[in-house]
Amino acid sequence: MKLTILGCYAATPRTFSNPTSQVLEINNELVLIDCGEGTQVELRRNKIRFSKINHIFISHLHGDHFYGLVGLISSFSLLHREKELHVYGPKGIKEIILLQLKYSKAWTSYPLYFHELNSSQPQRILENSRITVDTIPLDHRVYTNGFLFKEQPADRKLLIEVAEEYNIERVYYRGIKKGKDAILEDGTIIPNAVLTQDPPAARSYAFCSDTAYCPEIIPQLTHCTVLYHEATFLQEHAKVAAATKHSTAREAAQIALEAEVGCLILGHFSTRYDNFEEFKKEAAEIFPAVELAEDGKIFDFQ
Amino acid sequence: MKLTILGCYAATPRTFSNPTSQVLEINNELVLIDCGEGTQVELRRNKIRFSKINHIFISHLHGDHFYGLVGLISSFSLLHREKELHVYGPKGIKEIILLQLKYSKAWTSYPLYFHELNSSQPQRILENSRITVDTIPLDHRVYTNGFLFKEQPADRKLLIEVAEEYNIERVYYRGIKKGKDAILEDGTIIPNAVLTQDPPAARSYAFCSDTAYCPEIIPQLTHCTVLYHEATFLQEHAKVAAATKHSTAREAAQIALEAEVGCLILGHFSTRYDNFEEFKKEAAEIFPAVELAEDGKIFDFQ
Repeated sequence: MKLTILGCYAATPRTFSNPTSQVLEINNELVLIDCGEGTQVELRRNKIRFSKINHIFISHLHGDHFYGLVGLISSFSLLHREKELHVYGPKGIKEIILLQLKYSKAWTSYPLYFHELNSSQPQRILENSRITVDTIPLDHRVYTNGFLFKEQPADRKLLIEVAEEYNIERVYYRGIKKGKDAILEDGTIIPNAVLTQDPPAARSYAFCSDTAYCPEIIPQLTHCTVLYHEATFLQEHAKVAAATKHSTAREAAQIALEAEVGCLILGHFSTRYDNFEEFKKEAAEIFPAVELAEDGKIFDFQ
Repeated sequence: MKLTILGCYAATPRTFSNPTSQVLEINNELVLIDCGEGTQVELRRNKIRFSKINHIFISHLHGDHFYGLVGLISSFSLLHREKELHVYGPKGIKEIILLQLKYSKAWTSYPLYFHELNSSQPQRILENSRITVDTIPLDHRVYTNGFLFKEQPADRKLLIEVAEEYNIERVYYRGIKKGKDAILEDGTIIPNAVLTQDPPAARSYAFCSDTAYCPEIIPQLTHCTVLYHEATFLQEHAKVAAATKHSTAREAAQIALEAEVGCLILGHFSTRYDNFEEFKKEAAEIFPAVELAEDGKIFDFQ
């Protein structure tokens, strides 16, 4: 599982700070999460092949999270994309993109599917052989979802020497890996637990931005491998955070602590701050396994 | 008159090439022409103060000419702009911008005026004490205008020693500078031509992008100080140029030659080319006073 931060700053793009966008590679699926202005340039800078992106998830319709989407969709056409592209985001995203394509007289060269969201409850919005994706309803000034990405459980690990000892034919291996018991020719049942070991735990990544402090999301996040949580402000600006429905570093850490996640990454920093180490320090007092996002930074979770 | 090229490449923004946008400073008025994705970052990079921009001209609704507009409009609000902003562009631009602001629940902090264009004839769209701006209808795949920016004529240059010789009172100087004759106390008329000299010629700048070869625009461009004309292709790709309604370097030079402009700047290069000197060479064979646009380049026309 590998996370590339393309942009992790709040509000307007600046010369050296990009608005929110990140690429998650999970179980051989590559997804784009949010798409602020300039994302396509950051994809190129980070040498991520456009053709590997098949799913784009948009948290909410504030400009710093989606103004780069229409350009990326257009560029896919200019690059003669033929593969399907799926966009998941709040109701309105389809109207916004199609209106612009209409005036450009530039329809896409590929099938473009919009999956518009408006539920206030968690929903499974994608499930394939590699991953599942669920929404995490957040609390912001406009309708906003976080996203929970999970690897599909791997097959159970077959203990080949044990299977051979029982003379189990290879044709049954697939079923055993999926959890079935083995039945020998004499009718004896060999329980699956004897023949297999647990697979490595399925990894998960939760993206939560933008949101006010929102403990309602904790049950969904419990034990997830990595949580990216916005921390626009430090606790000293808790009032501004509350008024704008953003979180402080301490609040993000509190969520991570209660959800017992493996690791917390902070991002969506306000550019009013010069020293982001303060965010790490503030969060670490509550939840020590904390990292800071940074444009161009790659987190590799083996 | 000063022109700053923020971006001069066709199609998708890339790591080191920006889509169309430029800033023109003319007679103390600063205007933004086109606004591809990433323009606000290029404005910062070129240290152009956002607050100095009051008029934005959009040639047409292809993404590489306007996808950066909504972000810039939003950033003006985040920077607490209060001054009016005027946007001139094809019909549709207002709907596109307002739809996005609606979903963001983010109205502007300042009065935002749209001047939508749909005429196929040249129109005067702005006139103030400093400049006039006229549309130049172009021939592209979607409705497109170039823009002709002209300094308002300066006052005539008063020959003070001559005025004093005739004992003309200072109170009449203003009228004489505006072109009036002087009438002495004995009724003698002193013609304005005796009292004044011509002012420096009003400078003008024509922006023509995107367009197929379009000789119909020549009368409007005649004798203009500087012509920026798109040259997406070299003549060897004239067929692609015609099919996509773009121009070649030679065609741009032909327009410059026939319009007898002072200087030609080529831009909107296709990124299929590596060596843009070829564009200059091809154009110079027809019109020698030719320059190449380049991202970040400043042309200072004294």
